[in-house]
Amino acid sequence: MSSSSTAPPVKPPMRDALVTAAFRLFLERGYEQTTVDDIVALAGVGRRSFFRYFPSKEDVVFPDHEGCLADMTAFLAASGPECEPVARVCDAARLVLRMYAENPTFSVQRYRLTKRVPGLRAYELSVVWRYERALAEYLRDRYAGRPDGTLRADVVAAAVVAAHNNALRSWLRSDGEGDAAATVDHALGYVRAAFGGPAAGPAADGAPAALFGGPVEHPDDVVVLVSRRDAPLWRVVQEIETAFGRA
Amino acid sequence: MSSSSTAPPVKPPMRDALVTAAFRLFLERGYEQTTVDDIVALAGVGRRSFFRYFPSKEDVVFPDHEGCLADMTAFLAASGPECEPVARVCDAARLVLRMYAENPTFSVQRYRLTKRVPGLRAYELSVVWRYERALAEYLRDRYAGRPDGTLRADVVAAAVVAAHNNALRSWLRSDGEGDAAATVDHALGYVRAAFGGPAAGPAADGAPAALFGGPVEHPDDVVVLVSRRDAPLWRVVQEIETAFGRA
Repeated sequence: MSSSSTAPPVKPPMRDALVTAAFRLFLERGYEQTTVDDIVALAGVGRRSFFRYFPSKEDVVFPDHEGCLADMTAFLAASGPECEPVARVCDAARLVLRMYAENPTFSVQRYRLTKRVPGLRAYELSVVWRYERALAEYLRDRYAGRPDGTLRADVVAAAVVAAHNNALRSWLRSDGEGDAAATVDHALGYVRAAFGGPAAGPAADGAPAALFGGPVEHPDDVVVLVSRRDAPLWRVVQEIETAFGRA
Repeated sequence: MSSSSTAPPVKPPMRDALVTAAFRLFLERGYEQTTVDDIVALAGVGRRSFFRYFPSKEDVVFPDHEGCLADMTAFLAASGPECEPVARVCDAARLVLRMYAENPTFSVQRYRLTKRVPGLRAYELSVVWRYERALAEYLRDRYAGRPDGTLRADVVAAAVVAAHNNALRSWLRSDGEGDAAATVDHALGYVRAAFGGPAAGPAADGAPAALFGGPVEHPDDVVVLVSRRDAPLWRVVQEIETAFGRA
């Protein structure tokens, strides 16, 4: 027998034990009816241990956001100038999705809890705001010196967060069934289509994203087709193929 | 002398008196150091009068948002199908700007207060969220049945709110100097360029032509498609089918 197999199983850290105890009680009794004393009693630790990890009862509902925010900030700070900015913030948003998708059961439970408790909704809004600011700060830096740089940064950050959350919530509403990553990719592709630079690039994920609209840097890369609405569709497609040089 | 000049000046309503008293104290002593008792004493009314108008001390900081939300909801509900949806939510956002711009001194004071008090920041986030939801609900209704209707609605609503707030904050930071409406118009114009129909004109009708930008003379008859040349062909055809209403 190797030493690793004889070692006792790793005890979950106290922080995780507190989260587990808290959610068991929140689901059994309700959030408001559960006190910090109840949580520490079930977890078998003292009050001071709770407050070492969580400033308040609300914080135990969102135990992973601080870490995710730190990861996101580090990810963005590590971006080189070769990263296409919209693609980069989309990838940063995917870090949040990954956190949710890693533990579907917990994420769905929290989603239901948060919907029911107004104080938790407010907490969640402030968390979402911090993610949005992290994205916007990065974009403001990247767009510095461009006309409307801060405007563009704020709007793109808001659009990315809205698209991510639209997809995330639809996945949570489906009880965590389905492919969360694909749903979010599709939603982020819509934002990239509106604002993004070239679809290709280091972060390109094959999304048909940057297809339409958006400010165009290189007009040679763009096809404009004008057609009568009553044109036969086959004819339009034929024109498209010709225009794209793929007939 | 006319009767109007002899009439006693109209006494400001009690609600306004409470707001005025509250802000005088917030500025003199600070928000946390001011109690509801202090406010009612200065305004010369009882506690019950305060709570008749404001559920909490926080609410007196934002006395006009409930009314503005109601105005916005009514404005959107009164929209006919001829309204281009993105233009309409931009106009709805201008109602918020108008509320701020009507009283620059008060708006700037509140901006500074809100920046200093975390609890007020959280309150403001929840107000902003409610505006965003009002816009998104309208757009979801207008985009019902369209591919990605709720996604588009949520993203456009978030983008409009972000653009509005970017412009509003830059005006507030300048102490309410400058043309707030022009600043907001410019910011909203950026969002319409990304998502909207024709940039100007009452003829905007949400025709699919407008999907892809590009002002069009006769939107009913013509479809304009702008695409990157490297777009996958299947995606282009899909968009064409949608634009022609034949998917």
